Parts: sequence; C-alpha cells; structure tokens
Amino acid sequence: MADTDDAILSAPVAAVASNLGVEYVISFRFGGSDREKAEAQFEKLIRALDNVGLRTEVRDGANGNALVFVRVRSEQKLIGEVYRSRVKDWLHGVRAAAPDKETQRSLAGEPLTEAERLRIVWQLITLPESEGGAGITPKQGDWKLIESVFPLHDHEFNKAWMKKWSTTWTVSPEELEKLRDRFGEKVAFYFAFLQSYLSFLIAAAAIGASAFFLLPAYSLAFAVTNCLWSVVFVEHWKRQEVDLAVRWGVRNVSSLQNRRAQFVHEKEVEDPVTCEVVKFFPAWKRLARQSLQVPFALGASAILSALYASVFAVEIFLSEVYNGPFKSVLVFLPATILSTLVPVFTSILTKIAKMLTDFENYENESSYDAAMIQKVFVFNFICSYVPLFLTAFIYVPFGNYIVPHLDILGLVTPSESTLDSDSSHIFEAPAVFQVNPDRLKKQVIYFTVTAQVVSLALETLVPFLKRKIFRKAKEYQNARHGVVPSDGLTDDPAERAFLTRVRNEAELGLYDVETDLREMCVQFGYLTLFSPVWPLAAVSFLINNWIELRSDAAKICVEMRRPVPHRADSIGPWLNNLGFLSWMGSISSAALIYLFSDSAAGMPHSLTLWGILTAILFSEHIYFATTYAVRMAMGKLESPGLLQERRERFLVRRRFLEESLGVDEKTEPDQKVTIGKEGEFWGKQHGAKGAMDAGKRIIGATYEKKEQ
Amino acid sequence: MADTDDAILSAPVAAVASNLGVEYVISFRFGGSDREKAEAQFEKLIRALDNVGLRTEVRDGANGNALVFVRVRSEQKLIGEVYRSRVKDWLHGVRAAAPDKETQRSLAGEPLTEAERLRIVWQLITLPESEGGAGITPKQGDWKLIESVFPLHDHEFNKAWMKKWSTTWTVSPEELEKLRDRFGEKVAFYFAFLQSYLSFLIAAAAIGASAFFLLPAYSLAFAVTNCLWSVVFVEHWKRQEVDLAVRWGVRNVSSLQNRRAQFVHEKEVEDPVTCEVVKFFPAWKRLARQSLQVPFALGASAILSALYASVFAVEIFLSEVYNGPFKSVLVFLPATILSTLVPVFTSILTKIAKMLTDFENYENESSYDAAMIQKVFVFNFICSYVPLFLTAFIYVPFGNYIVPHLDILGLVTPSESTLDSDSSHIFEAPAVFQVNPDRLKKQVIYFTVTAQVVSLALETLVPFLKRKIFRKAKEYQNARHGVVPSDGLTDDPAERAFLTRVRNEAELGLYDVETDLREMCVQFGYLTLFSPVWPLAAVSFLINNWIELRSDAAKICVEMRRPVPHRADSIGPWLNNLGFLSWMGSISSAALIYLFSDSAAGMPHSLTLWGILTAILFSEHIYFATTYAVRMAMGKLESPGLLQERRERFLVRRRFLEESLGVDEKTEPDQKVTIGKEGEFWGKQHGAKGAMDAGKRIIGATYEKKEQ
Repeated sequence: MADTDDAILSAPVAAVASNLGVEYVISFRFGGSDREKAEAQFEKLIRALDNVGLRTEVRDGANGNALVFVRVRSEQKLIGEVYRSRVKDWLHGVRAAAPDKETQRSLAGEPLTEAERLRIVWQLITLPESEGGAGITPKQGDWKLIESVFPLHDHEFNKAWMKKWSTTWTVSPEELEKLRDRFGEKVAFYFAFLQSYLSFLIAAAAIGASAFFLLPAYSLAFAVTNCLWSVVFVEHWKRQEVDLAVRWGVRNVSSLQNRRAQFVHEKEVEDPVTCEVVKFFPAWKRLARQSLQVPFALGASAILSALYASVFAVEIFLSEVYNGPFKSVLVFLPATILSTLVPVFTSILTKIAKMLTDFENYENESSYDAAMIQKVFVFNFICSYVPLFLTAFIYVPFGNYIVPHLDILGLVTPSESTLDSDSSHIFEAPAVFQVNPDRLKKQVIYFTVTAQVVSLALETLVPFLKRKIFRKAKEYQNARHGVVPSDGLTDDPAERAFLTRVRNEAELGLYDVETDLREMCVQFGYLTLFSPVWPLAAVSFLINNWIELRSDAAKICVEMRRPVPHRADSIGPWLNNLGFLSWMGSISSAALIYLFSDSAAGMPHSLTLWGILTAILFSEHIYFATTYAVRMAMGKLESPGLLQERRERFLVRRRFLEESLGVDEKTEPDQKVTIGKEGEFWGKQHGAKGAMDAGKRIIGATYEKKEQ
Repeated sequence: MADTDDAILSAPVAAVASNLGVEYVISFRFGGSDREKAEAQFEKLIRALDNVGLRTEVRDGANGNALVFVRVRSEQKLIGEVYRSRVKDWLHGVRAAAPDKETQRSLAGEPLTEAERLRIVWQLITLPESEGGAGITPKQGDWKLIESVFPLHDHEFNKAWMKKWSTTWTVSPEELEKLRDRFGEKVAFYFAFLQSYLSFLIAAAAIGASAFFLLPAYSLAFAVTNCLWSVVFVEHWKRQEVDLAVRWGVRNVSSLQNRRAQFVHEKEVEDPVTCEVVKFFPAWKRLARQSLQVPFALGASAILSALYASVFAVEIFLSEVYNGPFKSVLVFLPATILSTLVPVFTSILTKIAKMLTDFENYENESSYDAAMIQKVFVFNFICSYVPLFLTAFIYVPFGNYIVPHLDILGLVTPSESTLDSDSSHIFEAPAVFQVNPDRLKKQVIYFTVTAQVVSLALETLVPFLKRKIFRKAKEYQNARHGVVPSDGLTDDPAERAFLTRVRNEAELGLYDVETDLREMCVQFGYLTLFSPVWPLAAVSFLINNWIELRSDAAKICVEMRRPVPHRADSIGPWLNNLGFLSWMGSISSAALIYLFSDSAAGMPHSLTLWGILTAILFSEHIYFATTYAVRMAMGKLESPGLLQERRERFLVRRRFLEESLGVDEKTEPDQKVTIGKEGEFWGKQHGAKGAMDAGKRIIGATYEKKEQ
C-alpha cells in the first residue's frame, strides 16, 4: 500500500492525464457583466491563447462562469519553451551548465517536472505579449472578467501525499523534492522551512521543559540558551536556504523575475549588459521614494501602539480597579474595542502601505511583494507583541504607580469607602492597588497556546465560510445582470463528474504561502521574545506545528485552488524578519530576566534604569558576538548544496578544458635570448652545468682567498 | 616631457629589457655556511631551476653572496604557463570567459602584463614540485642559504612614476591600473585604498574644520556627521573593492591561493569537486583551534591594558601630584617604561599569536596572513587607543577621586605642608588635586599630528639604518666563516654598473603592504574614535596622507626590493577592522559627547551611569540603522565594475547561445491529443473558432434563459 503511494508520489507526469490533459483552467466570469462586453472579451481571450500556441476547450462553469480549459497545442512547442526557459536560466546564472543543444536529449537528461511544465504554460498565459506570452492578467486591465487561472488538483497525488505525511514523523528531503516537483519551489520552501523549524523546536522544547521543571522562574541560564538556540536556528536556516536553492536549481532565480504589468517606466534605455532596449526607472528615484517607509513605519507603530496602550489601560482599570456596576459586562469592552478597531486600523494602514509600495514602482513581482511584506510586518510586530510588552515593561514594573491614576473619570470612590460598611461594596476600590503578578504569564500562555489553537481552527473554518458567502454573493450578482445559472444538466454525462470537480475547484480560495510564513515568523517571535516568562511555549509550538505542517498540506489539497508552481530561491524577506526577532529577543530576554529573575511570584524587585540598560547593552553585544561566531563557524563547514554547485561549475569548465587543452610548449632551449648587450649577459654560461661551475668558482674563490 | 613619462608608464614590457632580460634574482648567501654545504645546495638550486624550464646566469654578489639571475628559457614555455594559469583562473571562477583556445591569439587579445609575467615566473620558482614549480622556499627547509628571490626594479618606470605622482593632486584609476600592471594587485589595492581614503578625507577635513571654527567644542552635530562619514566611507570602500577586483580581473582570486608549504595534512582524501586526491585537514578541528583566539585576545588585551593603566597612573602621579626631588628626571620615567616594556610585551604576544596561527594550520598563505593580522590587530588596537581611552573615560571623569589615592608610597607630604612656609615647597602637594582638562586634547593632538609626522620620518629613516646594520652583521659573519668578500674587481667591465645596482637592490628590505595598511587603519580609528575631542584631526590626516601616498611610492622605489606582484581581490581583513572601528566610533563618540559636551574647558559635568549607557545604546542603534540604510542605498546603485562583470558573463553565455540556438518548434497543430477519454474531451471544439463559438453559446444560453 505504502509502495503504491510512493509510486504515485514519484510519478510526476501521470497527474495531468487524470485531469484529461488539462493544464490550466481559466474561469471566465461573465455573470457580472453585459452580454456584449462578455462576448468580446471572451473572443479576445481565446484568440490570445490561440496565438501563443495554446489549445482551448470551453465548458459551462455554471453560476455565470465559463470554464476555458487550456493545454499546449503540441508537445514540440512545449519542448521549445522549456529549452528557451532553461537557456534563459543559464544566461542569468541560475544554472551552471548550459542545457544540451539537442532539446530532446536535454529533456531526457533532465526530465520535465510537472511544476516546470505548469510554470512554463503559466508564463505563456500571463507574460506580456512583448515577452512571448498572451498577456493575460486576471481581474486587471483588459481582463476584468477573468476570475482566475489555475491548474487542476491531482487528487491521487494529494491523497497519497496527505496519507504519507500524516503517518510519518518527519518530512524527508525526498518528500520535499516531490512536493517541489508538483507545487513549485515557493511552496516547497515553506514546507522545508516549517520542517526545519519543527526539528529545531524539538531541541527548544526539551530545553524549555527542563527549564520549567528544573530551573527557577526567569532563569538566566534558560534565557541565554534560548537566545543561543534562536541564533543557531536562524543561521542554520540561512545556510539551508542556500543549500536547497542550489539543490533545486533555483539559486539566484529571484533575479530573474517576471516584470510587473503595473511598472511605470520613465524612459527607455539600452541595457548596458544585454544591449536590449529596456524600460527604465532610475534607482535613486526609487530609493528616495523608499525613504518614505521610515516615517510610515514609525507613524503606523505609534498609532497602533497608542491604540493598544489606551485599550490596555481601560482593560486594567476595568478588570483590576473598577468595581462598579456592569463590571461583568464592561470587562468585555476592551476585547470588543480591539477586535473592531485593530482590523479597521490595519486595513487602512495596509492600504497606505500598498499605495506606498505602488508608488515605489517596482519592476518585478518579487521585489514588490517583498516590499509589501516588510511594511505589513511592522503591523504584525505591533499587533502580536505590543500587548505583551505593555504588560511586561509598563504594567508590571510601573503598575503600582500608574494604575491608581487611571481613574480619570472618577468612577471609583476613594479607598476610604472601605471604612464605611460591608453593604456599600459595589463602588469599592481595592484598598491598595496591587499589580497582578500572574497577568504576564497568563497572557503569554494565551498567545502561545490558546491563540495558536484558535488560529489553527480558523484556518480550516474561514475558507469554508468564505466560499459559502462568495457563492451567495455571486448568485445575487448573476440575478442582477440577468444571468440564470445553468444547473449542469447540459453537461456531457461522460464529463459530468469531471466538470463538477472543476467547478468546485474554481470556487476555492487562492493559497498564499506568505500568510503561512508570517504565522510561523510571528510564532518564532513569541519564542525569542517571551519564552523566559513561560518556558513551555516551545513545547506548545512543537505540538502545534506538527499539526500545522499537516493541516497546511491538507489546506492546499482540499481548501485551496492548486497553487501555480512559482519558483523562489528562499523564503524571501522572512529570513531578515527572523534575524530581527532573534536580535529583539536578546534585548527582551535581558530586560525580562533583569526585571523578574529574583522576584517571588513574578513581582519585580527594586530596579534601576542603569541596571536594565546595562543588562540590555551586555546581552545585545553578547548576541552580536555569538551571531558572528556561529556564522563564522557554520561558514567554515561545507554544505552539500554548495559543494554540488561547485562541482557542477567545475565539471562544466573541465569539459571545456578537456576539449581545448592540446596546448603545450615545445622545448626550444635558449630560443629567447638574441643579441646585443642582453645576449652577451646571458651567453656567458652554457646550460645548468655552466651555471653550476660558475657558482662553484665564485664560492670557491672567496674561500680560497681566505686560505691563501 | 610628460608625454615621454606617460609613454614609459604605459609600456609594460620595455622594463625587463633594461634589466637585461632578468626576471628574478636569487641571492644565494653562502657566507654563513660551510663550503661543502654551500656548493651542494647551490648545485641543487641550479638543477631545480633548470628542471622547470628556467635559465640561469651566475655572478658574484660580493659580501659572500652569489647572485643567480633567472629567466624563462623559451617564450613558448612562458606562453604555455600563462595559458594554464588563465585556464585555472577560469576554472575557479576568477575569469568569466575562458581564454582563447589558440594561445598565441589569447595573448594577443589579452596582452601579458609585466606583473602577470613576473607572477608566473614566481610560481615556477616557488610552487611545490607537485604543482609544477621548483619548490624553492627562501630561508626555509632545504633552502636555508637562499636569502631572497626578487625581481629587479625598473628604474625608468619608477622615475616616471614618482615624477607623475609628485606633480598631480590625485591618483587616477588609470595610474592605479599602470601600477597594478607592474606591482600586482595587492600593492595596487593599497594605493587605491589610500587614494579613496584621501578623497574622503577632504570631506572629513572640511567638516572638521567647520566644526572647529563654528561649532562649540564636543558638538553633537559634528560627532553625528563624523560617524556618518565613517559609515559612508566604509560602505563605499566595500563596494569599490569589489568593483576594482572585477575591473582588474581578480574577483574571487583569494579562493585560489597557493598552498602553504607548512600546512600539515591529517589524511589524503579525494576532493569531492575535482576528484583529485588532496591533503585534508578537517574544518571542525581548525575551528576548535581557532576558538583559542578568544581567550588569547582577552588575555593579551588585559595584559597590555594593565600595563598602560599602571604606567598611566605613575605618569599622572609624577606629573600632576608629585612635587618631590628629581621630578624633572622622573617625569620621563613613564615614557621610558612604556617604550621598553611595550615592545617586549608585544613581541612576546606576537610570538604566541604566531604559534597559535601555526597551530590553526591554514592551507594557504592568504588565510594564514589574515588570521595573523587579526590577532596582531588586537595589540594595535590596545596600543593605539587605550592611552586615550584611559584619559577620556578614567582620568577626566574620575581623576579627582582616584588621583589623590595614587600616592600609595607616601612620597608626598600631606597638604598641611602648604601651611608651613614658602621655603619648604619642595615636598609640597597641590592643595587640592585638579584634573588637567587639556590633557585629553593634547594627547589627541599628539597622536594625530606629532606621532604621524614622526612615523612618516621613521618610515624613511629606519630601512636606511637597518641596511647599514645588516651590512655590518654580514661582514662579521663572513669573517667568521672565512669568506673574504670580493670587491667587484672580477666583474666584466661591461656588466659592472648593472651588477652594482643588483647588489644594492639585494640589500634592500622586503616591502610589506600590510604594515602600510595597518598604519592607515589605525589612523582611521583615531578619526572615528576621538575626533570629537579635536575636530582638526582630519585636516592633519589629509595633509599627512597626501605625503604618505607619495612617500610610500618612493619607499617602494628606493628603499625596498621590488615586491613580487602578488594578486589580491581586496585589502583583506582590514575591511572588517575598518567596520569595527567605525562601530566603536559610534560608541566612543556618544560617550565623549555625553561626558564633555556641556562642559567648559573639557571638564565633565555631573554624569550618571544610566545617562552614559543611554547615550551609547542610542548611538549604537542609530549607527546600526544608518549602516543598514547606507548599505541598502548603495546596493541599489549599480557599480561600473559589477556591470562589467555582468556584461562579461552575459556575453560569454550569449556567444554559446548563438552557436546553439537553431532549435524551434515546428507547428504541428493538435499533435498531442490522442485517443480515449482525453481525446474525446479535447475533440469537441475545433481550433480557436470552435472554442469561441462554444463560449458564446454558453454565455448566450444563460442570458437567453433569463429573457425567456
């Protein structure tokens, strides 16, 4: 049984067959448009596809959609495209070796994976016409009616995949390679990262559990080990990323991205390297625009932090000071404020971020995405960690001074009221406010356990609900434009099952690997920043991520359209964010340990500002030194991927060398010396023998002089 | 006149001719040995040279030396070697393009520079026999009697060079290229760095002078600008270094170094890349040995700092507290202690550093040198900056508390003595000790002006004195072994002038470019660390370095043997040291400004520990952010060298592409679809027309339904 699964997992081409040879499905949604417009755009679509050598079949998609099935017209065309793509890779340094000049032989030597095939067809469909594609950009520009372009799931592969992963403890590199052959390097990189992180979490969980049971709370030893762990993990992944990129043959592929259709060029210049005329936007201008990121990041942080701080103050006041009427209801107020205001704020800020990123005018998709991710990461950071920072570094140390002043509205009667009588306890304030020492730990547990579980559940539930809602919305839209959805009765009965499947897949959401990476990155942040508060966090993450890895696989298989197999040579900007969190961790840990380490029950001992600054200064510099040392050490150890790259480059060159190395000097003794003064100088002694004799004469002469 | 100079500067091959075609001179010093040994080793030498295709002539070197003149036997041999070297470069990724298969054509396309010729002959002489050389290692192993192996100066070139440089303000890239063609990339990199630094110093001097005359002392604005300047300089050089390496065709050349003869292999393994059997020493073992550097650096720093601190205490005591007998003599005591003890300590520590570096067992010369440089840099750092750190951060802020306790021997009578009478003022202490506020500034001026001038003078004087002393020592040694030096009377009169010149050159010292780089790096440190104390430092350095650049050129021409033209792709580990000093500068400046900025006459105002820590913490993080931003910004701007590299690689690949790209698909429509279910699915609609009609039918049908 397992053998069959393996066989299915490793048969890359079988899949398309089970999809009746369909490479892409284009969902054409005419339901939201007028008939004339729809027909015109449809005709244009078919013609564009036909022009680039794609063959089409059209079926009713039901619900006001037409499904255009796309495949390459001839295998020969595909082979030509593959070859050109490989040559382009080689021209840009992605491949070490040029592809074989005989294309057929080249394909036999490096068989076409399904991901490569799909990627190449995708390029045919989406690249601008100037670059040899049909120029189809779903939902944009001239192609507003195209709802989506997606490949079809290979259900047999998916079933085998899920089965395999749910029955093994770890995902092997071979499994990742199979995944990459189907879903492309970008998705494979996410799973590779997740697996690598999971393996490291075993160590972190072991360290955390030992610290929890054996060491005192807020142990310095644990904080140091935890920091070291994060440094080693980040540096290790940095190397592994390069390694995988080399093994998967995608190193530097990020430099070879497809041009954004929205890129606005300032002028056309001749590329100094390729001598082609290219669209040009000056780098310094982009740089100037990028500098707007700094005020934006600061502003966004300030706004969001202020929001959190005010709500936090209200929350503290309500839960720990206020004792008046409706307390049981009012305590839910802060959570309500946050859950309504934060999405509003972040969506406004995200819009501004998008405007900024558009303004920065990137030439290709991947740099655009990276710029956007970096901006949004600022909000992620604030929303994820500021509540905990507030508790740890404001509430706990200064709560006793600040909290009594929170009652600016005078809602709480002064504490003399306690003297009155037992009956008037409704408006009673606690005699002396005492900081709740467990608050920080409870909050950390909430973020590292409860929130993770909730998010795991939501990830499964939300797409399902979304689908329901969208279906309703479409029905409404259809009705408004006079479209009565077909019920599938017109289908050829032989195709009905297949078409039903395709219609369902067309309704699924788009898988965005960045969301999953963000989730993991934020999680890593909790570990580096706050695990001294509750060392078991790593254990929770270990369990959570073991499931996450599998549920993400299931999500791709079941709840999302099959992703287009894009290439990538890394996890992109997330590596920097991991490094940043690891650095922040060295600061946060030092501050936490300094504040809480000697305290009973989490109450800080007397603290001095210079003490905490010294702790941070020390810790940070130790962090730098450690990172440097770990990087050095890892850099000296050879990695299999880099070895492979060196070998490939060497072999390519040696082949050339062997072809060309017939050159050898003929020994024509003394051929060089000619005439004149130079000839006289070099003519005195003949050959080695002459020189030896001359030397002995010189040596001898001086000794003899002495002996005389 | 200038035209002739230019002509000489750009005629690379003329030089060897004026040296009678001599490529290298081997100075064989038999004076220190027995006759039999000397004769045996001499014979071996000639045979070894003969075996690798080198031709020799021997002349009396006078003073117990024999001079062996070496040249390549045939031009054909040389061409073969050049070709092999270029192919090796290409195999290791130093060159983008493979050299032309026709060697003669290859040399015509890329003419042989004198540096390349000399480098290749040098390799013939010094490479181990296993790698095709004669395996001659001067002063080591079997070649103890070989005093030196050196090329001869090209006096005409040197004269033109010195004349040109002493009459122009800046050294142009073309000049550097000429230099590189003669002296190799390693020396050229030093001068390129020095010129780049000099250009940046113009800005620094302008900033410094304005700050000195317009801003208050210890101005924050100046400190920030100065720090920013240092960041920009380091980042700029980092890019320029790569750029130059590409232009000079030596990028990555550091990965292709010659093996150290002293490398001890643990076992022989097959290289996974080249499949050759290579000598192997495990990286982890070297790493473990390298970790000894940490305790060594800490220990050395502690010892040297303690030395400086004690001497400093004595000095303060003697100059500012002590008033007893012999004061006028005793004040010289600290300087004497330092100038005797520091060399002793550093030479012991350098020996330990050498032992450590030997123990680390590097495979090639350049990594050995880099490791040694890094260790010695620790001493450089301590010896150069600790005296100033002590004054700035110990003496000035804490002097008033510490100094009165320095009189541990009770040499000074208590201050009551002032009450006695005017006559007993010999043993009188100052009534209340007052820190000397000018001390720091005076010290900075000493290090940035006086010491620079002195070192410039010493650089010129010391080699001259050394030569004198060595000549005496040799005469003594000759006498002991019964060698009576020849007086040159046996020379062929036609050769006498030439031989006299060669004998003189043989006596010159060896030029070590690292010493000059060290000097510049240490100077840069004064600028980053202490220029807030005296902003004119940059002006002094600007003047000094303008002369230094020229005097270093003169030093190479006149006082040193002509250096062997080694290759290099950077200034090596000094870049890291510059970065380190720039970082330290951000810390030191912040501390200086915090301590002294509001003070009159350099006395610190009331200070708090947390204040200084905050200042440092802020400043350092601003430094990080700035460095990051500058690096980003510079990274986005294209550099000419990198552009050239991209172009070369692209052209190489395109050539291949043009040769091979005859591949194009034949349009065989619908060739792919075959039979069965798949055939049925794809057979419904014929061509684009069929699909369009089908689509229209689907679209129409739904609208019609509505219209019914």
